[in-house]
Amino acid sequence: MESIVSLAKRRGFIYQGSEVYGGLSGTWDYGPLGAALKRNIMNLWWQMFVDSRDDMYGVDAAILMNQKVWQASGHVDTFTDPLVECKECKGRFRADKLDDPNKCPTCGKEGTFGEARQFNMMFESIIGPASLASYEEFQAGIEELEVIVGSWEKSSVQHQVSSLEVLAALKAYVGSVRRYVEEKDKGKVYLRPETAQGIFTNYRNVVDNFYPDLPFGIAQQGKAFRNEISPRDFVFRSREFEQMEIEYFIDPQNWEAEFEKWVGLCKEWFAALGLPDGSVHELEVPEEERAHYSRRTIDFEFDFPIGREELMGLAYRTSFDLDNIAEKSGKSMEYIVKGSQERFVPHVIEPSFGVERALMAVLSTAYTEDEVNGEKRIVMKFPEHLAPVKYCVSPLLKNKPELVEKAREVYDLLKKKYGAVMWDDNGNIGKRYRRQDEIGTPYCVVIDFETIEGDGTVTVRDRDTTEQKRIRIEDLL
Amino acid sequence: MESIVSLAKRRGFIYQGSEVYGGLSGTWDYGPLGAALKRNIMNLWWQMFVDSRDDMYGVDAAILMNQKVWQASGHVDTFTDPLVECKECKGRFRADKLDDPNKCPTCGKEGTFGEARQFNMMFESIIGPASLASYEEFQAGIEELEVIVGSWEKSSVQHQVSSLEVLAALKAYVGSVRRYVEEKDKGKVYLRPETAQGIFTNYRNVVDNFYPDLPFGIAQQGKAFRNEISPRDFVFRSREFEQMEIEYFIDPQNWEAEFEKWVGLCKEWFAALGLPDGSVHELEVPEEERAHYSRRTIDFEFDFPIGREELMGLAYRTSFDLDNIAEKSGKSMEYIVKGSQERFVPHVIEPSFGVERALMAVLSTAYTEDEVNGEKRIVMKFPEHLAPVKYCVSPLLKNKPELVEKAREVYDLLKKKYGAVMWDDNGNIGKRYRRQDEIGTPYCVVIDFETIEGDGTVTVRDRDTTEQKRIRIEDLL
Repeated sequence: MESIVSLAKRRGFIYQGSEVYGGLSGTWDYGPLGAALKRNIMNLWWQMFVDSRDDMYGVDAAILMNQKVWQASGHVDTFTDPLVECKECKGRFRADKLDDPNKCPTCGKEGTFGEARQFNMMFESIIGPASLASYEEFQAGIEELEVIVGSWEKSSVQHQVSSLEVLAALKAYVGSVRRYVEEKDKGKVYLRPETAQGIFTNYRNVVDNFYPDLPFGIAQQGKAFRNEISPRDFVFRSREFEQMEIEYFIDPQNWEAEFEKWVGLCKEWFAALGLPDGSVHELEVPEEERAHYSRRTIDFEFDFPIGREELMGLAYRTSFDLDNIAEKSGKSMEYIVKGSQERFVPHVIEPSFGVERALMAVLSTAYTEDEVNGEKRIVMKFPEHLAPVKYCVSPLLKNKPELVEKAREVYDLLKKKYGAVMWDDNGNIGKRYRRQDEIGTPYCVVIDFETIEGDGTVTVRDRDTTEQKRIRIEDLL
Repeated sequence: MESIVSLAKRRGFIYQGSEVYGGLSGTWDYGPLGAALKRNIMNLWWQMFVDSRDDMYGVDAAILMNQKVWQASGHVDTFTDPLVECKECKGRFRADKLDDPNKCPTCGKEGTFGEARQFNMMFESIIGPASLASYEEFQAGIEELEVIVGSWEKSSVQHQVSSLEVLAALKAYVGSVRRYVEEKDKGKVYLRPETAQGIFTNYRNVVDNFYPDLPFGIAQQGKAFRNEISPRDFVFRSREFEQMEIEYFIDPQNWEAEFEKWVGLCKEWFAALGLPDGSVHELEVPEEERAHYSRRTIDFEFDFPIGREELMGLAYRTSFDLDNIAEKSGKSMEYIVKGSQERFVPHVIEPSFGVERALMAVLSTAYTEDEVNGEKRIVMKFPEHLAPVKYCVSPLLKNKPELVEKAREVYDLLKKKYGAVMWDDNGNIGKRYRRQDEIGTPYCVVIDFETIEGDGTVTVRDRDTTEQKRIRIEDLL
């Protein structure tokens, strides 16, 4: 894992978020190669699950949603992790992830934790200009209160100093705090902790606008945020991440068959990512561990370098979400079967994909250490369609204008066709190969004297085998 | 404008955010067609400004950034709008956008505004588990305080009731509020109000990892958030939106020529969006209206249905941002010219594109009302490469299996090649054409008896001219 993190930083895949200012825990920035890899994964998904299908509708909903969304979904009440605080060092930890539930991992003291409290993982903010005035009033109020307390303490007639004025100040202050808290609650918004609710809340719109036959799906890609108590394991558990989710609306009678179809589609996805057979495991989640509304859930786990962990989930959610929305919004979520009187609230199968987890699986599958000519080599064996750079083009020598010119010609040709083509004329050829191996470029094309003087062929070096072949320029395309 | 908003909702382009719960002001959800149109615009931009260029590095930075980013950039201090509050109705308004600065637009009263206060438009949140404990303590404290005030008021010896206990309670409470405010400040994060700072903070990483020659650019697409006092004009001024920004790093000596190049590139972009000549206007921002560090800024304005408004901006920002980062982070932002001792902080030209504004320009350019056979028609004349649906395929009659089968064949063929192909067999052909006109599908392909019995040609109907031609299926591809 450390090797992958180090390579990711060194080669421009992934940096700590806000790194220049010492970072911001649980956030990550994608450098040029990471951004390209992430785009390739996300575009592949969109192509496979939206564009190439007849029954899928893509949406792109806002990250900020009405707080009622998260009341209805249950997130306000139950989207929590247990939090403990060490009374000695004030360290805060996720109670269910402690190696020793009685001993603080920071200061080593025992028995310093109070009872665990439920910490809601949604990020809150306040929308609209409502909050400012009340917060300013609230801040001014506390300063006033401090003055009162101060003069009271100093007063020689301490036990008698209270007066109607002090009481009035206190009352005003309490009022201002109440207003602050009220306005805070009224304007409260959450950063969505999942993209799924942006789909459910648009179910009615999609049905009304497009009249799709059942089954049909609504798909979305986008950011989600969870204020993890202890973000960890690189991009595996971060506070800001990207999801790709589908809510697939079905006739409840067919749920078993539809679920099976999605198991198959998930496996096609793993194959498209190039994950090796045997590295993905199906975990049937037993009833007692499933959400109460789910009748079947499969966690697909992957053998990450940090161990076997969840890659994505597939859940049969019944009509839980649409029912909640119907109840909370007062609007019908029923689907009317075309040409019939039959109407019901569709049930839902939800395949929920995490972009970063897919990316981590791809990175760790690709990461390979081998030996070339007796020297250790690091090579990222990305599948060709995911590789951030498809070709690297070099002149054998950078101080020979005729080589450079010809190489530029080849570069332009390839770039026009493949887009993701890199120019590299730094250092000697061996070093360039090492560099391209580390970023996983499948093919390095070198223009040498034979190209311009001889038969017009170039050297194409294969990343995985390190074999070099001479190929005619036309045949590159 | 109203016609566009209405069509956007009716046809599945853009919905009010959280609509099912009565909406959330200033947020918008993209339905299937809007999401496709937005993707087409954003992918076109990425293709044009990143993938097809040799000097551009794409990044994808986190939305949540260390608060120091926004201190250094000046946003914490100055990213404000003037806010006034009506003392009568408590309505809140942006002071510089009032028709009558003395009269409340809601309740109509005059002279009810206090002095305008500067309202910071950044959304705040708190990261990490720090805040919860202190907020709970703070809430419990205020309840305790209310009890104290209550019993004090009821007390018959009101002017004498104060005691050491009351003082102690007050002191404890003041302490808890201070802790709450401190923790709130320490864990404070802002939702980025622009994507630009995610680029600047990664400048050092990109230079260190890729050693690009000057000039080079770093590009990013992504969400940004501004807590507008009065979001308005559909997606034009919303609280959550998407930006596409480039910071183009240059040798300061060349700024004028580089700026001119970018003026040209922006115009190429407008042409790629299909915006008509004459609808985009270059506004040279005069010195007194430019940011103090900018030596030249052009606002490109577009003739929107709401009037001539900013479409995008192009600014020469000198080394303002990198200098701020160097000062605040203590890290050098100097660039060392390859093979020389020359070093300097690069200057920056920033073309800043708003996705929603581009989309609104495209929507309003496309929106056309004309007459076909004496009937009013609404047609979205999208450029073909931006149209959310490229082809619609229909059987002439849906109850003729042989037509349906052949139509499916043609549909599959086109879908495989173009992706964005729609199947429509609802209603009669005339209605289908109207529907496809409203979503801007360039070509409707109809399979009729001539297709299967005759020469294998299909009817292809052109959206703009409404002309119908018979074309062989092979020639569709």
